[in-house]
Amino acid sequence: MVLSPDAPSVLRIAVLGCGVVGTEVVRRLVTEADELAARTGAKLELVGVAVRSLDAERDPVVDRALLTTDAEALVARADVVVELMGGIEPARSLVLRAVEHGASVVTANKALLAQDGPALYQAADAAGVDLYFEAAVAGAIPIVRPVRESLAGDTVQRVLGIVNGTTNYVLDSMTTTGDGLDEAVAEAQALGYAEADPTADVEGYDAAAKAAILASLAFHTRVALDDVERAGITGLTAQDVEWAGRTGHVLKLLAVAERAQGDDGTAGVLVRVQPTLVPAEHPLAGVRQAFNAVFVEAEAAGELMFYGRGAGGAPTASAVLGDLVSVARHRVLGGKGPVESSHADLPVLDAGHARSRYQVRLEVDDRPGVLARVAHALADQHVSIESVRQTPRATGDDASATLVITTHTAPVRALRTTVDAVAALDVVRRVVSVLPVL
Amino acid sequence: MVLSPDAPSVLRIAVLGCGVVGTEVVRRLVTEADELAARTGAKLELVGVAVRSLDAERDPVVDRALLTTDAEALVARADVVVELMGGIEPARSLVLRAVEHGASVVTANKALLAQDGPALYQAADAAGVDLYFEAAVAGAIPIVRPVRESLAGDTVQRVLGIVNGTTNYVLDSMTTTGDGLDEAVAEAQALGYAEADPTADVEGYDAAAKAAILASLAFHTRVALDDVERAGITGLTAQDVEWAGRTGHVLKLLAVAERAQGDDGTAGVLVRVQPTLVPAEHPLAGVRQAFNAVFVEAEAAGELMFYGRGAGGAPTASAVLGDLVSVARHRVLGGKGPVESSHADLPVLDAGHARSRYQVRLEVDDRPGVLARVAHALADQHVSIESVRQTPRATGDDASATLVITTHTAPVRALRTTVDAVAALDVVRRVVSVLPVL
Repeated sequence: MVLSPDAPSVLRIAVLGCGVVGTEVVRRLVTEADELAARTGAKLELVGVAVRSLDAERDPVVDRALLTTDAEALVARADVVVELMGGIEPARSLVLRAVEHGASVVTANKALLAQDGPALYQAADAAGVDLYFEAAVAGAIPIVRPVRESLAGDTVQRVLGIVNGTTNYVLDSMTTTGDGLDEAVAEAQALGYAEADPTADVEGYDAAAKAAILASLAFHTRVALDDVERAGITGLTAQDVEWAGRTGHVLKLLAVAERAQGDDGTAGVLVRVQPTLVPAEHPLAGVRQAFNAVFVEAEAAGELMFYGRGAGGAPTASAVLGDLVSVARHRVLGGKGPVESSHADLPVLDAGHARSRYQVRLEVDDRPGVLARVAHALADQHVSIESVRQTPRATGDDASATLVITTHTAPVRALRTTVDAVAALDVVRRVVSVLPVL
Repeated sequence: MVLSPDAPSVLRIAVLGCGVVGTEVVRRLVTEADELAARTGAKLELVGVAVRSLDAERDPVVDRALLTTDAEALVARADVVVELMGGIEPARSLVLRAVEHGASVVTANKALLAQDGPALYQAADAAGVDLYFEAAVAGAIPIVRPVRESLAGDTVQRVLGIVNGTTNYVLDSMTTTGDGLDEAVAEAQALGYAEADPTADVEGYDAAAKAAILASLAFHTRVALDDVERAGITGLTAQDVEWAGRTGHVLKLLAVAERAQGDDGTAGVLVRVQPTLVPAEHPLAGVRQAFNAVFVEAEAAGELMFYGRGAGGAPTASAVLGDLVSVARHRVLGGKGPVESSHADLPVLDAGHARSRYQVRLEVDDRPGVLARVAHALADQHVSIESVRQTPRATGDDASATLVITTHTAPVRALRTTVDAVAALDVVRRVVSVLPVL
């Protein structure tokens, strides 16, 4: 490559956080130093690793002489800061401080981006430095770069996918073993797929943050975590998973970001995370264990799918290092990467504007005429039925049956009113579950 | 975004070639002008479209006043040149001329890149302009940018996939209908999936050019079209497709680029295009019609898959426009995209170094002891058998049988010697086919 005479020959890299991902990033910086230098045009010199404790046990690849608890001082002497601490503070302050000092930032922090993305973007843009975050969404899978660069000349209609490996592992395990949620979460914890406090994953916060980031990029509109309608996998039972299978589906926690119409017909954006019944023949149904997969539907490109490891030290480090080489190349060759693109500024619609097929599972009296009465109640709300399946559960005087209704695509508001009307019928004992169908 | 005072407010775009893809590029430049300006930071002004004939019938979206047959003059007055003519000349001279005039280039020309990539890269680098070519490989699927940017900090081990939509359409059609090759090619031509002269596709030249480009990027090594071991789909019969199905496989034309070891144990690169038996449960087996899919296996990232439309006007235009926005942003914000990365300079190994499982189909005498003799011949060459399947074909004095042998992974050279030895057995009437198994 042709370098200008004042191109730097060494770039000082600071890594904040030395957990599973941080350790793998350090490993590649050390073991692939020559290769990375050849690809970048400058030596990437690791000048420090900020940690909370100097005494914790660490992989020997991490040189103890580089450890520091003074992250603030570290970021002030770096050309590129790799933020892998997670959480809002002190990560936020350190990223802003790094940018003020003229350092580019690579981060995997989805929570921070979903909460404070615009402020970080603005600070980086004002300072003329890069803010890269491929590792924040879907681990090793290149999805941030394709959405914000490869599809920059196209119109994205919908982004949907499995972006949380922990919940996918749990649901896959429930599907395979018939276990309940608690056992499956405990197993995932034992295997390192779920954290000791699994709230961020099982309640869908992690997926919602990623959905907000993807929606912001895809629709050139600021979407924050609070804009995402979120339902996690808590509350799902072994029976929900079993019934999904009986009706030809697999239960998956999906993130969906799409263009939709508001009440007055104007264009808006709808972003949600929710357990969804995926038809068994759909590619997303085959995404097993902790893998991730994202579909992007764009006007010109059509449907694209991206699949790979959504978490783990080495895969996440791959994404971090890819960003690191990109921002380092900008230091060497000049220029910078894409900045925030929020000019479309579409309204974020509330979840009531969603349209979907739904599967409603009811426990009903097992006697003639029940199906007809339920069907009548649905028709009253103009919700069209695709299929109904009735299965007796017990016999005797108190005989009950399970009624599984799949609707055609309907507005969620009509569906809610309908479910209320159905629940009020005297033959309906209980609305067991209402789940969207992909 | 923060713009410098001397950032251009208008960029002059020249499009060379106005076939299916060119027309769609022009359409998006016209219909999405405001959106593209907002994303880029400058107006993208289409200043001319170079064509061979001014009188040909064209989509009304193409303003006839912009048409010109003087491509040379056009590129001299453009900031960005979009080359969609295909072929080597005059595309090559025009791209070089554009670069000399300081224009960045976006091209979809896989043949030109696979033949003259290094010269084009060098010219662009020397002139400080961008050379982008996402559309040259796998149409709308973002694969060039992920491989050369997202995975820039990782070590790619293998890239493999279906990168030619025409042959995939033909093989898929043969699989579905049982038709022979000629009928399937004729059908693909009638539907616009194959050209009147289908040679470049069916003989594997198109796939080989894409394989060369991907290998160059993935392994930081110059790989040209001539370095690719190439076998097309000509010669494949309805029986080959049928036997693939009987043994639980689907026949696909795969491009494979991988790290491999040379005779002296040093690292090298092996690139080939060949019809391959893909196990029915492998995701590539499910890639239907003219779709493309590419797997990338990297040291840290693990296995990644990219899937989407590999050809067609609108999908290819999506990739072109994404590149166009990238290079235009560099004009506005400063900087430039990645340059050629060929520092690894690995030797390109000849195909004899390939290792694979193989399926060998033989027509043999239908009498006792034949299977044992064939197995013995294989064992003599140290080729280990995974399975053997014998099916009688005709009865009577001249009874023959089909013997299908699947080997464990073996070096292709050992396999070739073995096949020769097997062919020489008096009980073997004919070696019907030898195909690698994924």
